[in-house]
Amino acid sequence: MGERGLPDGWKCLSSRYLARDPWHTVREESLELPDGRRIPRYYVWEYPEWVNIIARTEDGAFVMIRQYRHAAGETSFELPAGTCESSDADLLAAARRELLEETGFGGGRWRHYMTLSANPATHANRTHTFLAEGVSLLAPQSLDEGEMFSVHLMPPAEVAELLQQGEILQALMAAPLWRYFCEERLIAPLSE
Amino acid sequence: MGERGLPDGWKCLSSRYLARDPWHTVREESLELPDGRRIPRYYVWEYPEWVNIIARTEDGAFVMIRQYRHAAGETSFELPAGTCESSDADLLAAARRELLEETGFGGGRWRHYMTLSANPATHANRTHTFLAEGVSLLAPQSLDEGEMFSVHLMPPAEVAELLQQGEILQALMAAPLWRYFCEERLIAPLSE
Repeated sequence: MGERGLPDGWKCLSSRYLARDPWHTVREESLELPDGRRIPRYYVWEYPEWVNIIARTEDGAFVMIRQYRHAAGETSFELPAGTCESSDADLLAAARRELLEETGFGGGRWRHYMTLSANPATHANRTHTFLAEGVSLLAPQSLDEGEMFSVHLMPPAEVAELLQQGEILQALMAAPLWRYFCEERLIAPLSE
Repeated sequence: MGERGLPDGWKCLSSRYLARDPWHTVREESLELPDGRRIPRYYVWEYPEWVNIIARTEDGAFVMIRQYRHAAGETSFELPAGTCESSDADLLAAARRELLEETGFGGGRWRHYMTLSANPATHANRTHTFLAEGVSLLAPQSLDEGEMFSVHLMPPAEVAELLQQGEILQALMAAPLWRYFCEERLIAPLSE
């Protein structure tokens, strides 16, 4: 993306890893801004690329999951999602694998839908949403350790209600769902 | 939110702070899942509550900012946003203060629009979007240290194009904007 006359990026004066665990890889950096000001300690989280999937069966139902999330202390509805692993050929392969492992659904017609960041100030990775239409149940769930959730097939009106009630808490999932419901005109207009 | 028959939350066996800086407060926890499995190291980021604002002037223009974000290494368009400070009476006061400081705009009619999480697996805080209609320029920008960005007044069609081109990278901003453009029917339908 062009800078359109704005200042360039920040200069990194020093950088060190505070931690390099799989779910906790953090760099502490000392930075210099274009106007010469300095930020002595800036924190950047590194993760693999993340993927999530808007998956619909041939009859239009959405494949949703309902999961407890410890930091927020809340159980809510989500899209199937996961991280890109080194064994995945590409992001699409990661998305197909995650949908199959988490829900048992697969097949159908796939395309990249949008790419977002959980927070571009702190996260170095991106989240890639894929659209999978015409999926069907191919296999049983095969969850990773620590994963525990239920799978729900929901008609569009039920997902629309979740969106309108604010029950899709995760912004990386609410954004592509709102976009999809907007572009596909799946949501009832507000009373006018 | 009710559990609807799903397992309860996870039991915290131990918890300690790895860091307590203003922008880097992290707890490391040892957890036990409802089925007895254990996660020895789980990381929770604590932040103040965050706010962002969909602000429109009386003639319908959106008050947007364009800002470099170091972790993503990218400059993109964003909503005015910030954190709730202890001196703010409530979330609405924080949102009004942030809009005024970052852009100089204020006044108008305000309401809470939606609440999301950057990632409920890792972030203990929430992000609250406010809708401010009929704002006007009241004061010059008054930026915090380290803040450096430009303010842009954009008609709905330009913001719609940013959304459709994927140039709103931050999910916490893309979600409420897509919702708003959907509910207010501000976005042109796809070619049919």
